[in-house]
Amino acid sequence: MDSHLDHLFEFLRFQSISADSTYQNNVNACADWLNGYLNDSGLSSEVIQTPGNPLIVAKNKHQEGRKTLLIYGHYDVQPVDPLDLWETPPFEPTIIDNKIRCRGSADNKGQMFVYVSALKDLIKEGKEPDLNLILLFEGEEEIGSPSLAPYLTANKEKFNCDVIAISDTGMIAPQTPTMDYGLRGVACLELTLTGPKTDLHSGLYGGTVKNPGSALSEIISSLHDKDGKVAIEGFYTDVLAIEPWEKEMWADEPKLADAEFQSSAQAPELFGEKGFSAAERLWVRPTAEVNGMGYGYQGEGSKTVIGSSAFAKLSFRLVPNQDPDHILELAVKHLQAHCPAGVSLNIELEHSGKPYLMDPHSAFGQSAQRALEKAFGSKPVLVRGGGSIPIVQDMKEILGADSLMLGLCLPDSKIHAPNENLPVENFVKGIEMAKILFEELSST
Amino acid sequence: MDSHLDHLFEFLRFQSISADSTYQNNVNACADWLNGYLNDSGLSSEVIQTPGNPLIVAKNKHQEGRKTLLIYGHYDVQPVDPLDLWETPPFEPTIIDNKIRCRGSADNKGQMFVYVSALKDLIKEGKEPDLNLILLFEGEEEIGSPSLAPYLTANKEKFNCDVIAISDTGMIAPQTPTMDYGLRGVACLELTLTGPKTDLHSGLYGGTVKNPGSALSEIISSLHDKDGKVAIEGFYTDVLAIEPWEKEMWADEPKLADAEFQSSAQAPELFGEKGFSAAERLWVRPTAEVNGMGYGYQGEGSKTVIGSSAFAKLSFRLVPNQDPDHILELAVKHLQAHCPAGVSLNIELEHSGKPYLMDPHSAFGQSAQRALEKAFGSKPVLVRGGGSIPIVQDMKEILGADSLMLGLCLPDSKIHAPNENLPVENFVKGIEMAKILFEELSST
Repeated sequence: MDSHLDHLFEFLRFQSISADSTYQNNVNACADWLNGYLNDSGLSSEVIQTPGNPLIVAKNKHQEGRKTLLIYGHYDVQPVDPLDLWETPPFEPTIIDNKIRCRGSADNKGQMFVYVSALKDLIKEGKEPDLNLILLFEGEEEIGSPSLAPYLTANKEKFNCDVIAISDTGMIAPQTPTMDYGLRGVACLELTLTGPKTDLHSGLYGGTVKNPGSALSEIISSLHDKDGKVAIEGFYTDVLAIEPWEKEMWADEPKLADAEFQSSAQAPELFGEKGFSAAERLWVRPTAEVNGMGYGYQGEGSKTVIGSSAFAKLSFRLVPNQDPDHILELAVKHLQAHCPAGVSLNIELEHSGKPYLMDPHSAFGQSAQRALEKAFGSKPVLVRGGGSIPIVQDMKEILGADSLMLGLCLPDSKIHAPNENLPVENFVKGIEMAKILFEELSST
Repeated sequence: MDSHLDHLFEFLRFQSISADSTYQNNVNACADWLNGYLNDSGLSSEVIQTPGNPLIVAKNKHQEGRKTLLIYGHYDVQPVDPLDLWETPPFEPTIIDNKIRCRGSADNKGQMFVYVSALKDLIKEGKEPDLNLILLFEGEEEIGSPSLAPYLTANKEKFNCDVIAISDTGMIAPQTPTMDYGLRGVACLELTLTGPKTDLHSGLYGGTVKNPGSALSEIISSLHDKDGKVAIEGFYTDVLAIEPWEKEMWADEPKLADAEFQSSAQAPELFGEKGFSAAERLWVRPTAEVNGMGYGYQGEGSKTVIGSSAFAKLSFRLVPNQDPDHILELAVKHLQAHCPAGVSLNIELEHSGKPYLMDPHSAFGQSAQRALEKAFGSKPVLVRGGGSIPIVQDMKEILGADSLMLGLCLPDSKIHAPNENLPVENFVKGIEMAKILFEELSST
């Protein structure tokens, strides 16, 4: 085990930040190291160049008649700022309170490395899984995976598989094995409202022209009704209703009570669509969120100005069977219809990704749950994810395979934030889980 | 005249920026220069220290039985940024297209200097006005005149006067003498809505908590009804109705047509309270304006975040007989009543100032209009101002005297902006106007 941790630490030390091109050499060095490690472990690995960062693809010797498992992960990490909030150097792995603290420890190097470590053990012990394996690790997940889906589409046959395993989500609480069988999709846009050609003195013009800040407030507040329901016409038309068994399952799990979500959000109270629990609002209901707004004077004190323009950044979280392009069309139509007089509206569409849903009671789903239960000693909780991993639905559509999402990080693993960490225990039990998963899937 | 311009240029070269303490020496040097110039011109001037920048107070020899005229102006100027938009150095007076271009040329050094120059001429020629004169020039107008009202209150007897003259407003068009007989007041506040304790991932929490950006939009859009009328309860209760003669006078003046205001605002269309012309909305109707808003992620691209808090800066422009403190009370009550569930509201009150109104048909008002007409060769247009000069109503309350506002700058004088300028003609005719005003007032 110490040897696995040592190698993980080597892997973690690479500053493989994909969002900042000044780290390009580190990204490449990290990919090369991973490729070498996989080859040394007894797999046949290659570095595949893309228009962006390289993919690492490793396989064992494939044999007819075996199931094929694709393991997906990513070796790129988020930027580390604000640096001053880190209590240890962000790229120097440090064990504190039995947690591995380092950028990438949870998202995703630490999690993907459980599969690598499990395979290394098994190959060394001559117990190679009775599966055809494809390990697929990308270096652009944190910037939206621009190169992966096109590469998969163009090279489908290379990635033919029966099922996919991903550990890039989380447990709902410590010691609580969790399987995500769904994800929300996402669609983003930015809107700008422009009134007067330049900023105006609010004394000399106030009352005679439409204030773009007021106009922005009107258009943003038109997105929801008073009960928090999205007011865009047709927004809910394609929404798949929650299944009775899901409703019951979540209602029965005390760790999914509304109070738990409120405490985790550190919010004065919960708010959202009437008639749904917090878990339901998060996993089976779509949202419209404003993520940023800017207008006029934002410095100290007051400046009596009417700003020339105001902007807002919006994102929609989508559930099956909503289509991001269709939702963006409806949103644009709504914004146009609700644009107040006296300002002009400009909309830029940003990134989007589809929602995902699998049947957790499928044969593969049950195998995954058995692996979680055996490794962690209790029945896994079945959840959907509120966030988005667009590549999961892309892989479903391109490769025709479902993804078993077996998250190992915890609610306080601080992914994307300072002091990111992963409990040593989750790493150790994660390797055990991977080994059991191989066994379970080979006999599914 | 060349000599007056030369002296004005000396005055303009002082970088007397009151908002930035690094210019403190320049402010003091400017005050000292002005004091010396007034003494050299034959007046008895002194520098009066205040907790802030010095006041300059100059008098002629007062005699029993004469009217007393107080002339108010300010020698401090606005900052000059953005510097790169200046086509000439901001503190090097340059005549371009028959306009004096320099920071302070219009606001207010160039305008106040017409009175100084007129007096210098008259004293030199032995034609000193038959008036007791008090020249009062402050150095903190651009930062809200914090020292002046307290000083006047504590030294009332020193400033006893019958009427006040101020040239710190503007003409509605070139060659169009204009008298402002009213000003709007102002009251500012900043509000902050706080939801979750820290920023949250909008995928992992979106739909379960109130979004502070949405909440801000709701509360801001609650400030107006659909027709642009302020929706705060009691907001209009104390508003003095427009007089029929004002309505008629403004409707009859082609330079005050709605189209002129729209063209000046460079806005796609005008917008405001139904049933009022642009001039009326600007001068006899109060407003609620949002001057700034900030929330969440405002950088490039998208970041799927729910910000912890959102803020807005509001200002209200007030008309007689609205009281700023009372309006702020009503506004706070409204904001509290309209604060959405799920966020907490914090309000900081900022600066305020009272509206002002005088009777332009009073004896002094008529004298002022005769001076404008004689100097500029056409009947002056009577307007009210949409902006605020709180010291005007303060002087009314402390000294009991009305202010004759005889503005000399033009709509494109670019006050507070790069390339500030004043037509040479307005400076020359302004000196003439001051001389006639002295004569008119002495016989009023």
